[in-house]
Amino acid sequence: MSVHRLISQYQRLAAAHCPRMPRALSVTSCCVSTLCGLLLLLPARMTDADEGMWLYNAVPREALKQRYGFEPTDAWLDHLRLSSVRFNSGGSGSFVSSNGLVMTNHHVGADALQKLSSEQRDLLKTGFFARTAVEELKCVDLELNVLTRIENVTEQVNAAVKPGMSAGDSQKARRGAINTLEQENAQKSGLRSDVITLYQGGQYHLYQFKKYTDVRLVFAPEKEIAFFGGDPDNFEYPRFDLDICFFRVYENDKPAKVEHFLAWSKNGADDGELIFVSGHPGRTNRLNTVAHLEYLRDVVNPDHLNMLRRHEIALKTFADRSLENMRRAQDDLFGVQNSRKARLGGLAGLQDPEVMAKKKSDELALRDAVEKDAKLKEKYGDAWEQIQKSLQVATKIRTELNLFENGSACHSDLFFVARTLVRMAEEDAKPNAERLREFAQAGRPSLEQRLFSEAPIYADLEMAKLADSLSMMVEKVGPDHPLAKEVLAGKSPSNRAAELISGSTLTDVAVRRKLAAGGAAAINSSTDPMIKLVRSIDRSAREMRTVFEQQVEEPQRQAYAKINAARFAILGSSTYPDATFTLRLAFGTVKGYTEGGRTVLPWTTIGGTFEHAAAHGNKEPFALPESWLKRKDQLNPTTPYNFVATADIIGGNSGSPVVNRKGEVVGIIFDGNIQSLVLDYAYSDQQARAVSVHSAAIQEALRKVYDASSLANELGK
Amino acid sequence: MSVHRLISQYQRLAAAHCPRMPRALSVTSCCVSTLCGLLLLLPARMTDADEGMWLYNAVPREALKQRYGFEPTDAWLDHLRLSSVRFNSGGSGSFVSSNGLVMTNHHVGADALQKLSSEQRDLLKTGFFARTAVEELKCVDLELNVLTRIENVTEQVNAAVKPGMSAGDSQKARRGAINTLEQENAQKSGLRSDVITLYQGGQYHLYQFKKYTDVRLVFAPEKEIAFFGGDPDNFEYPRFDLDICFFRVYENDKPAKVEHFLAWSKNGADDGELIFVSGHPGRTNRLNTVAHLEYLRDVVNPDHLNMLRRHEIALKTFADRSLENMRRAQDDLFGVQNSRKARLGGLAGLQDPEVMAKKKSDELALRDAVEKDAKLKEKYGDAWEQIQKSLQVATKIRTELNLFENGSACHSDLFFVARTLVRMAEEDAKPNAERLREFAQAGRPSLEQRLFSEAPIYADLEMAKLADSLSMMVEKVGPDHPLAKEVLAGKSPSNRAAELISGSTLTDVAVRRKLAAGGAAAINSSTDPMIKLVRSIDRSAREMRTVFEQQVEEPQRQAYAKINAARFAILGSSTYPDATFTLRLAFGTVKGYTEGGRTVLPWTTIGGTFEHAAAHGNKEPFALPESWLKRKDQLNPTTPYNFVATADIIGGNSGSPVVNRKGEVVGIIFDGNIQSLVLDYAYSDQQARAVSVHSAAIQEALRKVYDASSLANELGK
Repeated sequence: MSVHRLISQYQRLAAAHCPRMPRALSVTSCCVSTLCGLLLLLPARMTDADEGMWLYNAVPREALKQRYGFEPTDAWLDHLRLSSVRFNSGGSGSFVSSNGLVMTNHHVGADALQKLSSEQRDLLKTGFFARTAVEELKCVDLELNVLTRIENVTEQVNAAVKPGMSAGDSQKARRGAINTLEQENAQKSGLRSDVITLYQGGQYHLYQFKKYTDVRLVFAPEKEIAFFGGDPDNFEYPRFDLDICFFRVYENDKPAKVEHFLAWSKNGADDGELIFVSGHPGRTNRLNTVAHLEYLRDVVNPDHLNMLRRHEIALKTFADRSLENMRRAQDDLFGVQNSRKARLGGLAGLQDPEVMAKKKSDELALRDAVEKDAKLKEKYGDAWEQIQKSLQVATKIRTELNLFENGSACHSDLFFVARTLVRMAEEDAKPNAERLREFAQAGRPSLEQRLFSEAPIYADLEMAKLADSLSMMVEKVGPDHPLAKEVLAGKSPSNRAAELISGSTLTDVAVRRKLAAGGAAAINSSTDPMIKLVRSIDRSAREMRTVFEQQVEEPQRQAYAKINAARFAILGSSTYPDATFTLRLAFGTVKGYTEGGRTVLPWTTIGGTFEHAAAHGNKEPFALPESWLKRKDQLNPTTPYNFVATADIIGGNSGSPVVNRKGEVVGIIFDGNIQSLVLDYAYSDQQARAVSVHSAAIQEALRKVYDASSLANELGK
Repeated sequence: MSVHRLISQYQRLAAAHCPRMPRALSVTSCCVSTLCGLLLLLPARMTDADEGMWLYNAVPREALKQRYGFEPTDAWLDHLRLSSVRFNSGGSGSFVSSNGLVMTNHHVGADALQKLSSEQRDLLKTGFFARTAVEELKCVDLELNVLTRIENVTEQVNAAVKPGMSAGDSQKARRGAINTLEQENAQKSGLRSDVITLYQGGQYHLYQFKKYTDVRLVFAPEKEIAFFGGDPDNFEYPRFDLDICFFRVYENDKPAKVEHFLAWSKNGADDGELIFVSGHPGRTNRLNTVAHLEYLRDVVNPDHLNMLRRHEIALKTFADRSLENMRRAQDDLFGVQNSRKARLGGLAGLQDPEVMAKKKSDELALRDAVEKDAKLKEKYGDAWEQIQKSLQVATKIRTELNLFENGSACHSDLFFVARTLVRMAEEDAKPNAERLREFAQAGRPSLEQRLFSEAPIYADLEMAKLADSLSMMVEKVGPDHPLAKEVLAGKSPSNRAAELISGSTLTDVAVRRKLAAGGAAAINSSTDPMIKLVRSIDRSAREMRTVFEQQVEEPQRQAYAKINAARFAILGSSTYPDATFTLRLAFGTVKGYTEGGRTVLPWTTIGGTFEHAAAHGNKEPFALPESWLKRKDQLNPTTPYNFVATADIIGGNSGSPVVNRKGEVVGIIFDGNIQSLVLDYAYSDQQARAVSVHSAAIQEALRKVYDASSLANELGK
């Protein structure tokens, strides 16, 4: 489990559109990303490796042909793209029947399962199967997107930025152009329209999506088997997980008829066979400058990991108090543990002298080439220094920015509800072009879908999270910091957390709707303590954001655009941008590897599951569910269960369909092994592997464990 | 469980004598401590509260008489003192039979249990009972101490420090005097002789101990019942834990006959009854200056907590891989979780504006009084500034000091074995008076007991811990720091950890003995990678320590001595020093409290245990052991099980006997409730409570669950 879901609940509330990275991530871990594939600097290796998270409008046809003799047609690509689904809760999926059936991972669906659960009905624990359409459960706030159209709008976006503009003016002009483009196209088409930043500012593409907001739960196995092995086995291999979940999209209260859906391969792929992965990798940082990578290594990642560890322990402490507490916290806890493990693996890569030496020599080679060409030097020569300078600003502002603008001081869903309401009232008074990105008109329906979600918010869990984050705030800036004083209002962190949460009425969605409808007047006269808290710090928080956007983000966009252009000029084009939680195509082969001298086979089998459980004393998280224990004898133990492949994936690819040359489903991505965590910074196919559930195991389990033949029969039909 | 054991395995190796605080603690959390009781500034409250961790040579006779009409005789005090036992692994205990039977907590004994265990014999899991003397298991490296004599040697120690000496010279002179005093007294008496620093430099006492090093395990319950409720219930109340363990001291291969041992109270203490606690509280910081408390709040504790959290997660990640991994890591993991919870509670106190406001007004009152008296002003007026200055140095040096001198960069037992060997060779070449404290002659037998311990060291666990701490080192000082480069030798943290651990032969005690016997020549020619690593950084590490000792520790000793004297001059004497893991007497009454409007009764009952388990689904850590489930019907459910009292305790008091006026055992301390964690900084009897196992429950469980009537009959006899 855990080509991770990317977006936590509060992040989702805070971000208006998902394709833009969630704010929390954008401040703590990005502040920039990248340009293109590492191997550009070593173009000879391109044909040796299965590297790449390719744009659908720039598929590496030549490489596929040379390496695998495979030439995808436009129709083949269109079909796969239109069968691919983005889960805006932070994952990938695909249509697998004409009746709008969507397959994804259990851990991608977990957010929806959690929101449909209560103390009396814990769907994560029990699993779920709707034998008939009427039993399908409508999700609370799930939005699925299908990418229908791509248009390169780089020129339009850049045209807004005039020569000689200050970074501040450039940023505003660019934002205005993007907000306007989105709004015009949304109005024209009726489609969700997002302008995507690629190559960290090198290109801007308009992505248009068919959007589904009536999504219903069809099937989920028990968490015990979906996340068998739990956190210990997460990012490990061999694995034995049935990490699947099925939803169905509805239109006009009926299952949607979809033209594009994937056929089903019963036998799956052979060892060494070519496979494709179509999904939404979340973020990579492969071609950050060395200075930028060092900043991630020495500043951002250590700090972010400390925060994740404290979240993990605070959540665990809360969860361990009772079974109901555990139920309430489990989805948050999984998200945090998953991020912690992923981030640790990434940091290990950055701390590996070999990885960094390679980064340094690659950068040196590129900079040398630029220096030697007078024209290139004049146009692009200052880019690296520009990045360096932006990082100095970032280092200086990041603590306060993270606490007060990014909201890490107030780890609470209600805080983000309050902030969305306060800002919405203020932003709505401005022309669309001048609004903060997440309040631009085109994204409003999706924003409201989240803001007015009926998903339960638990006061006790909120207090536990908030108390710990307020304590962190005091640790980081001291109790005498002016904003910390506003936030604490003379109380201790735990007393203040209790006061804020128990005093707020924002858990009631009707209250939110009323405040939203009332605009600035309603917000300004509200006595809700959370609204008052947001009001008291928002001016300062916005100022921090402006500094970030104008002195970090915009200069980095401009600098990376230069580096990108220099690289194109020197090394030629044909590459892929860093991951941005937008649809990409990856490819590779089913392939084992060696580790510590031992051969790791490409497949595990269903029979191995029972042995793995026994080797761990059949104790949680290695305890199998009753359903599996009961049907053990009926299962074919040699059925392939999980398998590995060399395709280039990362967090966000969770739930991506894995297809063969014929476009048939042979599996579904659900994890990467521990060696794959360095893929954030550089591709490798030596040991790094994508981990999938095998198509045959899905059929076997549905039929023999869950008596779900109707569902099994529907797959691919 | 968890009036915490204080000293982890590596800390024990690093520190020569235990009564001096372990090095790791002394650098991360202390760098000073305190002078005397908080309430001195409000002497009127003294008779209202059960405050105080009293020295046996300065018991508050008047307060006891006034408050409880109790006047302890010298004989009563001597008997209790001589029946009290210090576990140098970090806890307290008492003699409970004439045959050298010692009672302590299971979690104090856990270190010894762990060292006696293997994959085939997990004593923590199964528990243990020696029905006959021949079955008693000899512990690997346990040392128990009984305090036989106290002498105030303040004048002798201070006489070495001449007026006008620099801080560096003072520190050396003081160290010389202490080393010499210890050695002379040890030779004269044949007893372990430690000079103890009290009032953070206000007084020095010579403590002499009868020492037992042949200690054998008699009885331990299963960890499931000893630590029932696990980390979730740790520091909580109501509780249901049989946190006890029995050892026996031997002399000449026979059970030692002891003159002083405690009688046993079968019925225990009544609600409201006066009780006494005799044990070894580890550390308090009650009268630190405000600046010093702020330093702990803003710098030391947050950083230390981040380290504890990362240790916890690294250990948990290791432990969760397999049942055997869990067995190997469990004792370390408990220690870290216990410290994390305690430290979090303490930090919450420091972050409470009310607590700090009180500290500030108390300090202001004292400083005002000093300012108003010309003589006092001249003698003591600069003390607060002197502390402030020392803290500036501490802030500056602490990162490197912790990493390289305190060894947090190398979280590995083998590293500390190597460092002890390297330094021993160097220190042994010096006169005793000039040696580092932990290598002074008087402490040598205890040091060797630990250095040559046959306790297992697991390579896989060592690698996991070391890799994580090396990564932390890179995070903190960057990979280009000269010492970090020495430590890493061009490798990534995990590769370097693997190389160091798998390449070292120091797991073999014979190798250690040979290196120790070979002195400097053997050390300098050793090719053991761990020895080489220590050699490469030890010069720099020692320099850091010198700066700390001379510019932080010694100035603080001098300044706190002044503050202490000023307080005595203004407010009179009769107080207690902050805790220093030396024997103290506390008193209080058995008493419930109210929490969130609910009444918390002073007792729980054995019957409540089964209900508590059921309320948590009988799942780990709320699963009861088979032995208890089997005997449920035979147990009297109304037997009092755990109880709370107002006595003033803190970590290190674990295992302390709780006695009544007659000196009979009515219980054994094993925890403080969550509200007691602030006792590090200030006493309170509003909700803060010490938590004990009741004497009646011990009898009931021994007889009815464990068929251990022979042991039950021996208690108090």
